Amino acid sequence: MIVPRLIERKRDGHALDPAELRELVLAYAEGQVPDYQIASLLMAVYFRGLDRAEMNALTSAMLESGKRLDLSRLALPRIDKHSTGGVGDKVSIVLAPLIASLGVAVPMMSGRGLGHTGGTVDKLESIPGFRTALSLAEAEQQLRKIGCAMLSQTSEIVPADRKLYALRDATATVEVIPLIASSIMSKKIAESLTGLVLDIKRGSGAFLPKLDDELALAAAMIDLGGQHDVPVVALLTAMDRPLGWACGNALEIAECVEILTGGGPADLLEVILALGAEMLQLAAVCSTQAAAREMMRDAIASGKALSKLEEIIVAQGGDNRILRDLSRMPQARHRGTFEAKRDGVVQQVEPRAVGYGVIALGGGRRNMEDEIDPSVGFVLTAKPGDKVVKGQPLATIYARSASDLSAGASALEQAIVIGDTSAEPLPLVSHRVTVKGVEVIA
Amino acid sequence: MIVPRLIERKRDGHALDPAELRELVLAYAEGQVPDYQIASLLMAVYFRGLDRAEMNALTSAMLESGKRLDLSRLALPRIDKHSTGGVGDKVSIVLAPLIASLGVAVPMMSGRGLGHTGGTVDKLESIPGFRTALSLAEAEQQLRKIGCAMLSQTSEIVPADRKLYALRDATATVEVIPLIASSIMSKKIAESLTGLVLDIKRGSGAFLPKLDDELALAAAMIDLGGQHDVPVVALLTAMDRPLGWACGNALEIAECVEILTGGGPADLLEVILALGAEMLQLAAVCSTQAAAREMMRDAIASGKALSKLEEIIVAQGGDNRILRDLSRMPQARHRGTFEAKRDGVVQQVEPRAVGYGVIALGGGRRNMEDEIDPSVGFVLTAKPGDKVVKGQPLATIYARSASDLSAGASALEQAIVIGDTSAEPLPLVSHRVTVKGVEVIA
Repeated sequence: MIVPRLIERKRDGHALDPAELRELVLAYAEGQVPDYQIASLLMAVYFRGLDRAEMNALTSAMLESGKRLDLSRLALPRIDKHSTGGVGDKVSIVLAPLIASLGVAVPMMSGRGLGHTGGTVDKLESIPGFRTALSLAEAEQQLRKIGCAMLSQTSEIVPADRKLYALRDATATVEVIPLIASSIMSKKIAESLTGLVLDIKRGSGAFLPKLDDELALAAAMIDLGGQHDVPVVALLTAMDRPLGWACGNALEIAECVEILTGGGPADLLEVILALGAEMLQLAAVCSTQAAAREMMRDAIASGKALSKLEEIIVAQGGDNRILRDLSRMPQARHRGTFEAKRDGVVQQVEPRAVGYGVIALGGGRRNMEDEIDPSVGFVLTAKPGDKVVKGQPLATIYARSASDLSAGASALEQAIVIGDTSAEPLPLVSHRVTVKGVEVIA
Repeated sequence: MIVPRLIERKRDGHALDPAELRELVLAYAEGQVPDYQIASLLMAVYFRGLDRAEMNALTSAMLESGKRLDLSRLALPRIDKHSTGGVGDKVSIVLAPLIASLGVAVPMMSGRGLGHTGGTVDKLESIPGFRTALSLAEAEQQLRKIGCAMLSQTSEIVPADRKLYALRDATATVEVIPLIASSIMSKKIAESLTGLVLDIKRGSGAFLPKLDDELALAAAMIDLGGQHDVPVVALLTAMDRPLGWACGNALEIAECVEILTGGGPADLLEVILALGAEMLQLAAVCSTQAAAREMMRDAIASGKALSKLEEIIVAQGGDNRILRDLSRMPQARHRGTFEAKRDGVVQQVEPRAVGYGVIALGGGRRNMEDEIDPSVGFVLTAKPGDKVVKGQPLATIYARSASDLSAGASALEQAIVIGDTSAEPLPLVSHRVTVKGVEVIA
């Protein structure tokens, strides 16, 4: 294997031999190929793409670079959900216990905040004591015991992906569909799933802003899943505004508890039910949407889903008393109300501005080393299309200081646009993609 | 300066700010930017190119990263010739003393063998004792004293280029016109020239195989020269067959001595006279081709050019007795004759096959660390278009062992194609490019 010749082949638009690509990825994972050669290859892939066989070889090599969850002794179906990332997206924290409470194992490996978006792991760690750094052995044991584990990506699983991702982040090669697809799917296949539901975000707050790219990503991941015997269904959901109301780690946990006790924002609940229905159908627990939705509503109404969350929190060392007393969650010292500056219709609640606002408040990272403050953020009830009058409260800002309150307010001023015309937000769930093709829902 | 944002801008087809590009190159030269970010940027440049301002900023920053020859106290015109590299191309070794013998300073900084092509420095070092690793101070002194110095690229000049070139070589980003142009021109401008003649090789043995690319490279280098007050003239010359007869380091020195004593192959002499005439006109020593050619023929016939070579050899520690006794050059222990296998017309003498044949004999490097044997190579008198009969000697092979003789023969079998039709080699000198445009010569 002469690496510059491989780079040259990709640069010139030819496909790499799958066996050579595998050898290259494994050699890179073991430190035998320098970063600079892979960086050059990644940029060539940005321009030339990867074909089906190359994408599969890359995914398989990444899997081969580490271990997998061993859930072979688990008789249950094993379904996970993965989102491409958004602002206010706390779906996983409700969905994992909800689906696990219905007899499906949910091995959920999540990430930390990235760019303007939050991360499930950061949110979970705002629960006092909650530990996400489970070893594979611990996760396996917990899955056998309570059917769900919510962990951060361990160094045991797909180490090649960790290394590649850090390199992509430093070399402007993050937004490359075959690389995104392989990165996500290698981690998900390593969870030994029997099915996977993807939540692919659309709109200005999504990583891939164009619908064609989102559909291409969905198709690539569905294909990769198929090649590894993991059936995949993808829903395209709106990220032209934050999902739900709360944006900020502890605030989002509180909102999840609200949902699991029958309250919370309607848009968040709807996305949870839509994704959950796909999970239950992939698990063959239900055969129709309607049956799945009824089952989930029952699990929420009966408290069964909340109990499962409590089991998870206890198993992972968290303080389960927060479920009955949210004041035990980290509390911001300063609160302020953000009001409408004029009468009109909310045109836009720009998720990137909100996400960067949370970071400005200290609730997210600028650099990987930054400590985050779990207590800060926004509870932002205004949605595009809402009629508002001047002085009406649109959001509450949670901050560490009075000056941070002003920083939060100016972020919201940028994010929230009030105008005179009616707004046209994206449909909440717009497309469903399966191995059979694309179905337009709304 | 946030490097991933710069890479992203280039990746997306936008121009970089010249000041930022300068800052980036200087930071890279000082080790403050990692190789992998530059590797990714270089691949983006492969796909997106660099505009005029970017190319100039890159060239200026590379110059700024090191020192220049200080020839301010030298009253003579200062002209160099640079070739993009070929097989059997020993033009510099004749041209430097020839032109220096006519009252023009020739500060000639050259490279080592690269890929299938030989390097002037390796050839010169086959002269016993010849030292090419001159410091800038030594080169300046020698130029003042005898009007010519033939040195290898020192670490004092354009260190950013050395670093970038090594990275390009490892990342399949060598064949990128703006990068080639900046690399060559930064080194040439650092020689404090008053004029530069470029020999851009064409045909299957050239680094850039397409005529359009060669013309684009010529235009880029002429433009960069103009921006730094160095007038540039480029000739496009044939590299669809080796130049001259000898291919191999000591053998090529012997051929240069032949030329300077009035013999040698006609094609080599013609390329020397064509390039030399441009040098003499840029130096304003002559105002016409014809006058320049006559002056050069006189300098050869009178022995003036050979005396200048002798001065250079003595000044640089070499054994000048080789000029009168070529048996003092390194001698290969084994010699063999390569004969025509059939009657016919020589269709092709493929320079890459010949160049790799020299490497196979031990006369070139596979890796930068390889030691080379200066004595080995070919003297290959067959040229495309020659009528030959079966058994006629086409070449002499010089080797270290009998088995190497066979390896050399099989390289020549690949290189030399004999057929029945007439051959159509490229014209020896086909285009002349100046700041005014392209002139087709033949």
